[in-house]
Amino acid sequence: MLPAIEWKKNRVVMIDQRKLPLKEIYLEYRRYDQVARAIETMVIRGAPAIGVAAAYGVALGVLAVRSGKDIDRAFEKITRRLERTRPTARNLFWALERMRRTFDASRGLKLADLKRRMLDEARAIETEDVATNEAIGRHGRDLIPDGATVLTHCNAGELATAGYGTAVGVIRAAHEQGKKIRVFSDETRPFLQGARLTCWELDRRGIPVVLITDNMAGWFMRKGEIQVVVVGADRIARNGDTANKIGTYSVAVLAKEHGIPFYVAAPMSTVDAGLATGDEIPIEERDPREVREAGGRCITLPHIAVRNPAFDVTPAKHIAGIITEKGVFRPPYDFRRVQ
Amino acid sequence: MLPAIEWKKNRVVMIDQRKLPLKEIYLEYRRYDQVARAIETMVIRGAPAIGVAAAYGVALGVLAVRSGKDIDRAFEKITRRLERTRPTARNLFWALERMRRTFDASRGLKLADLKRRMLDEARAIETEDVATNEAIGRHGRDLIPDGATVLTHCNAGELATAGYGTAVGVIRAAHEQGKKIRVFSDETRPFLQGARLTCWELDRRGIPVVLITDNMAGWFMRKGEIQVVVVGADRIARNGDTANKIGTYSVAVLAKEHGIPFYVAAPMSTVDAGLATGDEIPIEERDPREVREAGGRCITLPHIAVRNPAFDVTPAKHIAGIITEKGVFRPPYDFRRVQ
Repeated sequence: MLPAIEWKKNRVVMIDQRKLPLKEIYLEYRRYDQVARAIETMVIRGAPAIGVAAAYGVALGVLAVRSGKDIDRAFEKITRRLERTRPTARNLFWALERMRRTFDASRGLKLADLKRRMLDEARAIETEDVATNEAIGRHGRDLIPDGATVLTHCNAGELATAGYGTAVGVIRAAHEQGKKIRVFSDETRPFLQGARLTCWELDRRGIPVVLITDNMAGWFMRKGEIQVVVVGADRIARNGDTANKIGTYSVAVLAKEHGIPFYVAAPMSTVDAGLATGDEIPIEERDPREVREAGGRCITLPHIAVRNPAFDVTPAKHIAGIITEKGVFRPPYDFRRVQ
Repeated sequence: MLPAIEWKKNRVVMIDQRKLPLKEIYLEYRRYDQVARAIETMVIRGAPAIGVAAAYGVALGVLAVRSGKDIDRAFEKITRRLERTRPTARNLFWALERMRRTFDASRGLKLADLKRRMLDEARAIETEDVATNEAIGRHGRDLIPDGATVLTHCNAGELATAGYGTAVGVIRAAHEQGKKIRVFSDETRPFLQGARLTCWELDRRGIPVVLITDNMAGWFMRKGEIQVVVVGADRIARNGDTANKIGTYSVAVLAKEHGIPFYVAAPMSTVDAGLATGDEIPIEERDPREVREAGGRCITLPHIAVRNPAFDVTPAKHIAGIITEKGVFRPPYDFRRVQ
């Protein structure tokens, strides 16, 4: 298996996450607008992976520029297109800002050198993400008790990042310590990232996983079958309020009701210190067809009205700890001076 | 549209609820064991509808008996087969007990007369269920504020009963009063009764309905978009603890967190006064394939482990009221002397 995203001979290669786990299809993109479309249509998803994709998208766009006099206008066009793909994941904007800083710092260079610098920066974003996730795993693994059943929601694993994973990285790190752990994976409607991606990843890594529907988690908590919850994040406000896949908020409330610790695992690049609280996080509402369909088939009358927020916000008060590469933050959270 | 179940020329006719709403297929059964299989495979589901089906199943079985000397043994065989179909819904056992009382009271009769009495009793169970649901609607409608958005889970509507519905009956009765109400329908994985059945029923009745995935309910409560919750029930213990479709418990906890009243609507035939608490209610665990599949297609690796409890139990402390044909019961519940 290749990682979720890879740079290969001036092309971006992605595994098509819409088709997993039943088909393992790799798509190659030569143009930045193809990468933008891949982010929009969820060929690739997961906040850190979206960040890497956006960085490589910029690199692809810049590589295609023929003349130094076009570069400024081209760069603006490229980044504006990539910014418009998905509104919630902080890492998208973080990666684009980082590419912009490199661009600004490379203005005096010859075009060929600027192109190389931009590609190097995108590669650095990818490489650092794996190291970051490994650090998250090291910090988080001690929060997972030996013998525990861990609940996770959506996919915050290898496929959501450049590699190793954030929430799944914590689980992997605990497993690699020799702890006997088991994972309950919420299927995560409507896109089924849990059923399709998390189960697939954990199964390949030899970590016992049990698939449940989203509406079962509360009942298994009540029956004492879940000891700890770890999820990823798409954007974290200064006060610790965390946007993540729709359904995360319900899991957090249910965990609180049952006295089960609820952890968020994410790189610092997911923190948006510019936002005071989660109320300011933009929540993407996606195509109603995602809810009207399951397994590719219509499951209701085609004209039934639908709501489809792709994310929700979990208030910081429900979060026992935020696991980052800099360590585990505990409430009350204040990310103003951390970045 | 025919009702969910109907007696027609010595046959039981059911609409195939596995195929709705995209296909409207009616199945006819001449033998009681076919009815048993239809209950097991969820051609028909919903506690009151299962009760009616079991009663008609007994009637079919008794009608086929050729000689009065075989009738006792046949009756035992028929009821034992029907009892084994699904363990959780109280109404199944309630209907079989009622058919047994009629059988016992008809022992002296000629075989033809006994057969007629048994069929009359099954018909009475069907007819009374509709009247019961209309009474539930009258008692419950005042609990639904004008302008409210009502959340319901699974399907406790016409298709789950002999007609009119319990939870959906309350919604219909409020709508028929002229109240402007809107329904959020949880899709209700894995069997998708909300997406397939509740949306279809409400749409046909002209009641505005919005389909959401199960994991969205908590978020919409937090956003202030839901004012009241009404669900059905499969079995209610003496103290008010209520078994209902998996996911109901989570909805109840989330409703409590947001100060939203959570109501159960069910006929008295769902109350099992023989059970002190919900801990004694048997919870059916169904085929793992129901979770591994969505829309008829596999959504994960075929060997992934699965849990599939079909029901959960909501403790009475989370239930603001239990709406029955005898009125609305309020906590603390004690159904010992009510039946």
